[in-house]
Amino acid sequence: MVEHTVKAFDSEIGQLRGLVAEMGGLAEVAIRDAITALTQHDDALARQVVAADARLDALEAEVDRLAVRTIALRAPMADDLRDVIAALKISGVIERIGDYAKNIAKRIDALDRASNIEPVTLVPAMAEIAEGMVRDVLNAYGSRDAQLAVEVIRRDAKLDQFYNTLFRSLLTHMMENPATITVAAQMLFIARNLERIGDHATNVAEMVYYAATGEYCTERDSQTDDTANLT
Amino acid sequence: MVEHTVKAFDSEIGQLRGLVAEMGGLAEVAIRDAITALTQHDDALARQVVAADARLDALEAEVDRLAVRTIALRAPMADDLRDVIAALKISGVIERIGDYAKNIAKRIDALDRASNIEPVTLVPAMAEIAEGMVRDVLNAYGSRDAQLAVEVIRRDAKLDQFYNTLFRSLLTHMMENPATITVAAQMLFIARNLERIGDHATNVAEMVYYAATGEYCTERDSQTDDTANLT
Repeated sequence: MVEHTVKAFDSEIGQLRGLVAEMGGLAEVAIRDAITALTQHDDALARQVVAADARLDALEAEVDRLAVRTIALRAPMADDLRDVIAALKISGVIERIGDYAKNIAKRIDALDRASNIEPVTLVPAMAEIAEGMVRDVLNAYGSRDAQLAVEVIRRDAKLDQFYNTLFRSLLTHMMENPATITVAAQMLFIARNLERIGDHATNVAEMVYYAATGEYCTERDSQTDDTANLT
Repeated sequence: MVEHTVKAFDSEIGQLRGLVAEMGGLAEVAIRDAITALTQHDDALARQVVAADARLDALEAEVDRLAVRTIALRAPMADDLRDVIAALKISGVIERIGDYAKNIAKRIDALDRASNIEPVTLVPAMAEIAEGMVRDVLNAYGSRDAQLAVEVIRRDAKLDQFYNTLFRSLLTHMMENPATITVAAQMLFIARNLERIGDHATNVAEMVYYAATGEYCTERDSQTDDTANLT
């Protein structure tokens, strides 16, 4: 009976981890597609990103349901319980990451094809960092890899620096070309959504670290301040 | 027996809500104290903010424990279950808000008394918006007030605009006074932490909305883009 319960629990934890991994995969795709839609002015792809977000909401609800059932039926302890709670909290954050990708996609309709401005070329590189953080933090979650989680947290400073560079570049562009203010402001909004994605990936990394080690990660606090390299 | 169970559950939910409210109160104080320490160059107060953060971590762990016990013993359904899960997720976000306040406090040591630059005067006003969002979203949580949650979400655009203004002002300041680049970069870091606090308060507001109504809030998506007012 005990063995049966343990097996059932392992299978439920496996299912929970699978659902969270699926959410992470969808969030990654959403970021990539939103940026492709932006750079290629693909409105149909943008609409697809917006529509696909409903699936993330549904998966979060499924994680909630399964986590609750697991807690109620199996009464997991210690490490196992930490795993279930991590799934609950991480799914909530990934759902937000999906929202930011959706917000980017929603902007694309407002940008006409003639609106390519030079700083736009920086956006895909920034998106790649953000997307890589989401991918790797999910890998860290899947393999309970606290070290990889710390590595993701470190990368957030790089993304911040990228954001600062893009912000400065957009601002200069606006001053020199007042006609592009609207499109530059849209870009700024998009860059901020990418920056927030990185921040949320960092939060997930801290949860992964906690779930893997049972300790709070202090890495973010000890980071050197890359904003000092702003100018 | 059923009545007894219901009463026990109500008391547990009440306790959970109390713990989350306490976390919110501590986060608010942390933001306020961090900014006071900044403007008054009060290193002792800054250290106090850093030390107080451990209490938020402990409270989050307590919310986790109590929520799990409630799910395991009471097997709550529908609205009640949504309430317990909301407490679990919201406590995680408030803990992060505390981290941002702590990050601000940690910067203060690095700023010497002679380093007051003009844009610093904008920081307390920005902090007040962020702190007000945290306070009101906790009020919304306490009174299950979906309308107030929506109001908090709307305020995030105002905070973003403030951040843009401050960023621009700091950048100009840096260009005109290269000697202040380091302190301006610190201010930028502080402003970003405030902006992230607002973003997290917005996330809590969306969770409060969901817990209160059972529906996802679409307010953030429909927001007008105040980044258009950047210049």
